[in-house]
Amino acid sequence: MSSAKRTKTNQDLQKERDGASFNPFSLTCLLHGGEDNVERKRELERLALDDPELQHEHLSFLSREERYTLGIKKTIRFINNCWELDINGIKDVNIYKTAVFRGMLEPLSVHYGMFLPTLLSQGTEVQQDKWFSQALNYAIIGTYAQTEMGHGTFLRGLETTATYDPKTEEFVLHSPTLSSAKWWPGGLGKSSNHALVLAQLYTQGQCYGMHPFIVQLRSTEDHTPLPGVTIGDIGPKFGFDEVDNGFLMMDHVRIPRENMLMKHSQVLPDGTYVKPANSKLAYGTMMLVRSYIVSDAAQSLCRACTIAVRYSCVRRQSEMKPGEPEPQVLDYQTQQYKLFPLLSAAYAFYFASHYMMDTYFQLSGNISQGDLSQLPEIHALSAGLKAFTTQVMSSGIDTCRMACGGHGYSHASGLPLLFANATAGCTYEGENTVMFLQTARYLVKCYGASKTNEKLSGTVAYLSRVQTAAVAGKGARSLLDLEELVGAYQHRAARLVGMAANQLQAQAKAGKSPEDTWNSCSVQLVKCAQAHCHFFMVRNFVDAVRTADVDPATRAVLNTLCQLYAIHGIIENSGDFLEDSYLSGQELQQVNSHLVSLLAKVRPDAVALVDAFDFPDEILQSVLGRYDGNVYENLYDWAKKSPLNKSQVHESYHKYLKPFLQQNKAKL
Amino acid sequence: MSSAKRTKTNQDLQKERDGASFNPFSLTCLLHGGEDNVERKRELERLALDDPELQHEHLSFLSREERYTLGIKKTIRFINNCWELDINGIKDVNIYKTAVFRGMLEPLSVHYGMFLPTLLSQGTEVQQDKWFSQALNYAIIGTYAQTEMGHGTFLRGLETTATYDPKTEEFVLHSPTLSSAKWWPGGLGKSSNHALVLAQLYTQGQCYGMHPFIVQLRSTEDHTPLPGVTIGDIGPKFGFDEVDNGFLMMDHVRIPRENMLMKHSQVLPDGTYVKPANSKLAYGTMMLVRSYIVSDAAQSLCRACTIAVRYSCVRRQSEMKPGEPEPQVLDYQTQQYKLFPLLSAAYAFYFASHYMMDTYFQLSGNISQGDLSQLPEIHALSAGLKAFTTQVMSSGIDTCRMACGGHGYSHASGLPLLFANATAGCTYEGENTVMFLQTARYLVKCYGASKTNEKLSGTVAYLSRVQTAAVAGKGARSLLDLEELVGAYQHRAARLVGMAANQLQAQAKAGKSPEDTWNSCSVQLVKCAQAHCHFFMVRNFVDAVRTADVDPATRAVLNTLCQLYAIHGIIENSGDFLEDSYLSGQELQQVNSHLVSLLAKVRPDAVALVDAFDFPDEILQSVLGRYDGNVYENLYDWAKKSPLNKSQVHESYHKYLKPFLQQNKAKL
Repeated sequence: MSSAKRTKTNQDLQKERDGASFNPFSLTCLLHGGEDNVERKRELERLALDDPELQHEHLSFLSREERYTLGIKKTIRFINNCWELDINGIKDVNIYKTAVFRGMLEPLSVHYGMFLPTLLSQGTEVQQDKWFSQALNYAIIGTYAQTEMGHGTFLRGLETTATYDPKTEEFVLHSPTLSSAKWWPGGLGKSSNHALVLAQLYTQGQCYGMHPFIVQLRSTEDHTPLPGVTIGDIGPKFGFDEVDNGFLMMDHVRIPRENMLMKHSQVLPDGTYVKPANSKLAYGTMMLVRSYIVSDAAQSLCRACTIAVRYSCVRRQSEMKPGEPEPQVLDYQTQQYKLFPLLSAAYAFYFASHYMMDTYFQLSGNISQGDLSQLPEIHALSAGLKAFTTQVMSSGIDTCRMACGGHGYSHASGLPLLFANATAGCTYEGENTVMFLQTARYLVKCYGASKTNEKLSGTVAYLSRVQTAAVAGKGARSLLDLEELVGAYQHRAARLVGMAANQLQAQAKAGKSPEDTWNSCSVQLVKCAQAHCHFFMVRNFVDAVRTADVDPATRAVLNTLCQLYAIHGIIENSGDFLEDSYLSGQELQQVNSHLVSLLAKVRPDAVALVDAFDFPDEILQSVLGRYDGNVYENLYDWAKKSPLNKSQVHESYHKYLKPFLQQNKAKL
Repeated sequence: MSSAKRTKTNQDLQKERDGASFNPFSLTCLLHGGEDNVERKRELERLALDDPELQHEHLSFLSREERYTLGIKKTIRFINNCWELDINGIKDVNIYKTAVFRGMLEPLSVHYGMFLPTLLSQGTEVQQDKWFSQALNYAIIGTYAQTEMGHGTFLRGLETTATYDPKTEEFVLHSPTLSSAKWWPGGLGKSSNHALVLAQLYTQGQCYGMHPFIVQLRSTEDHTPLPGVTIGDIGPKFGFDEVDNGFLMMDHVRIPRENMLMKHSQVLPDGTYVKPANSKLAYGTMMLVRSYIVSDAAQSLCRACTIAVRYSCVRRQSEMKPGEPEPQVLDYQTQQYKLFPLLSAAYAFYFASHYMMDTYFQLSGNISQGDLSQLPEIHALSAGLKAFTTQVMSSGIDTCRMACGGHGYSHASGLPLLFANATAGCTYEGENTVMFLQTARYLVKCYGASKTNEKLSGTVAYLSRVQTAAVAGKGARSLLDLEELVGAYQHRAARLVGMAANQLQAQAKAGKSPEDTWNSCSVQLVKCAQAHCHFFMVRNFVDAVRTADVDPATRAVLNTLCQLYAIHGIIENSGDFLEDSYLSGQELQQVNSHLVSLLAKVRPDAVALVDAFDFPDEILQSVLGRYDGNVYENLYDWAKKSPLNKSQVHESYHKYLKPFLQQNKAKL
């Protein structure tokens, strides 16, 4: 695909752009942190998109093996280019990488996403000298092997053992059962020659829990697995075709004592175990990863909205009024109801990812100065937001796909692949329900603390003001007022946290064990965590709109989106607001009318709002979502390239169909 | 996979089976219409599953071309076997087909699903003599070409023309624009040599709308496209890999006058158009297709539930109580909350599909006797139920997939493929939102009729008793009572239909055109159609439980499932019941407690409830959902067969990784 912006634009899309109430570039700058950043982003993107070495067929025309091979080829080109072109810094590297991979996944992402950072954060200086520079320069390739076939989120359940042998000063890494096989790590199956293996540490006859060990898996000469190492690909998945997620079984594999990462805990030569100073420090990386997931969720939803909104302006369907041309699909209220709330959520998530990143860096600063006080709050928030955003994003992409009708189901739309890859975010790095329950545990604890008059701060401060009694008859108020909306969400969250806490207390009083109590309230607990995250989203969106440095027209459209986000959430969860009469039935009717008005208000700006995300066509990888809107010509061109069209008459005709048809004809 | 029932069963699953409160076979018999039917079903399944010609690798290890070829091969074997083994009758053929294809789709399904029935229902006797026997005996292969690249649900928008030329007594079939290319028909791309083409009929200078024409596409000698015919595969899709959905463009292709199907409308040799006697007759096939979709949706959801429930008993995770073994995942309330309502929905849909089939056959009888009175009601119901069931099924499969954690994302689970194929049902044969709006149009019409004291009957009779005013203070009632629950859903549906109707009236009074009025109320209209379908589901489930000929233990478990289905729906849509105070906040709390009790009540019977669906392992195609529960061994065996494991060191290592690693090592 060449840059679409040079071709003649579909008239319908052009009209949409001409009719927008604001300049999308001002929003692009807001989302990307200023005009300079946008320029730099576009420059980096073009470097990758115009690179002749990075052109290839549409992914859905390739087999999995071809895609894996392409992934390796691109990875190498990407790394070499970063070195040669001096592309540095997380931000620039990520922008460049996104444009290099264009919707593909990276088989070696675990090397730079987990292997390198863990070496850095958990290796001693000596270990960093030995391993980190090799890894940073890709003289070795590593993965991070934690999850096992029979064990996921619950780390203490992992079975792989690392038993210290003081005689030889070695650890013996072993997989005692089939279910202890390491399973899922990206890059483990075929690509990596090293791994950080998480294993239960045994020394002097005692188990000290999970620790990370550097294990060489394959020969650096010919890449064959080392003795005792059984390794392979775990087979095809929903998405992630380019990634060789792998399995690993170790049969008494010996590694030197120095291969245990010892910055925090240590095993001395004689086998003595030395405890870590502070076990909470490891939370930092986890939070960074979750912040990235929130950011990825935002990006994926932005992509899906871009595709669906543009196509809905190009596609015309049915007859609204006799004799008039078929209307644009986006003129149907039902279509607006599917897409605009998701569009508003995409913005909400974008701003939430800004918040998470800012907070992470601020927190890292505090932690390095010894201040861990904010850690539990932000840890709980990051767990909840990871779950909240990936859940909405995953079902939202699916909604966008279906909103594109039949063509949404074609790989030409880009939406099936986007969904299959992005939905994995609901499961990896902490399954979403488990994440919500982590958040809930913190919320309930805070609620308890507030009852003993402990002062809460930050994103949970509102729990001090929990109001669980009914609050009917608040008098006239405008439910388009942003602070009023924030108040509604705050009330809902506080009420649901309070309810869950009281439920826990009641069950405990009735004599249930703490574990049974927790389990029997867990549906309610998940709900309160969701309400908390939803409140955070609305609060943060409102703050972002208020503090945004933009012109009045842009602020107006942001304001509308923010109202829509909050109003739609009330409608989708109306029971929560009606249950204690915080809203009356009559007010809910008003909320419904507001929704109708807001959909109509967003309509003329919808295309500009997705243009503002600033995805080049080559990154969107969607025939339906093209910037120029020339959908049908390109759909036909794309189809002609389908592998099944290589020959006019498919070989299966000669082998199967022809004899069958002739046999049947003869019988007539 | 060999029949799993012969291997030793996982202990956890065995315990579940031993502990069930009822015999699943009695439910199997209820679902399949008696013990004889179950025996016949199993016999037909074994015929297909044990056929050595029908064994093959796991689908996800094959490329799309291999899958298409396999699909053709299986189709031919299937047809030949039906002939040789004398498998006849829709029911038997469908059972046998399901076992032949085992989760694959059939490239020629449109031939027997649409081409044949349309020839039969719309061809004259002469045409049937000529075409039907050829098609029935597979001397020709046909598809049904209706949808165009630029036009889907709205038939009047289709652009393909068939212009009659009285000089030669031929029709000239033509695709005037790119967007008029036929697009999507199954089997069109590579397999079919004929098509029923739907085109705008022009004769004597006038357009008479859509009519069906038999067009030969490919040579019966060598399968090359005939002159003027441009044809091909539309490219890869989310699912349907085995199907060559195709495109077709015609450049003034001439066919004899006799190739227009003329049972209803005719074009005489001189070009005179003769109108059809009754245009409603065509609705019959549409309803049958929609009934099948409801039935397919039920089946797909049953499969997903079977996989997720069994795996959740085998999988153990986390620590509920210190020192105790990791609990089965199904013991977590959150897991139960994900799966059991879907399990209850699967049963509800099963019973709904029974209702639809019975009604279809009864209605067909009435129609053949000239009684069309029930047609509009059942037509509206079938549209709504098609949308309602596919929507719940599609998101439900996704929920089941995610409930299986990481392994659910692997193709070994069978869930990604099940989802990708089944979700298409939300879009084809009428996009779901369009379907709901069709239902809504009928409901609103009935509501209007009831205001003029017209008597309503059947599934809409309740609209005569619409009660839109608040009905607070109904006094004590048990919301576990099935009739009470039916009443709640009936009230909700009636209220929402009434509200939508009133809204339409108010807008019309305010001077809006009927089209704008309809559009501006359409979100509300969809909602009322959903509520109507939901009410039907609950009503029909309750009736099915009441009339089921089963032992008391089986009835008890059905009763619990039915309560759960209704109670869960109230919680998920609580706003609708609270808004007019039909339920009080306090009652909603009770409903929540009921839910908790019902989940616990279903728990010990969950495995028996999915066993009752009676899917052989080979049809489930899921390592996680195996009857014997031996998940981990089989997951490992499956992974080892992954194409990426053909060689220990992948070829991309030699080509890309090795030089890269050596280059980097040299630089250190």
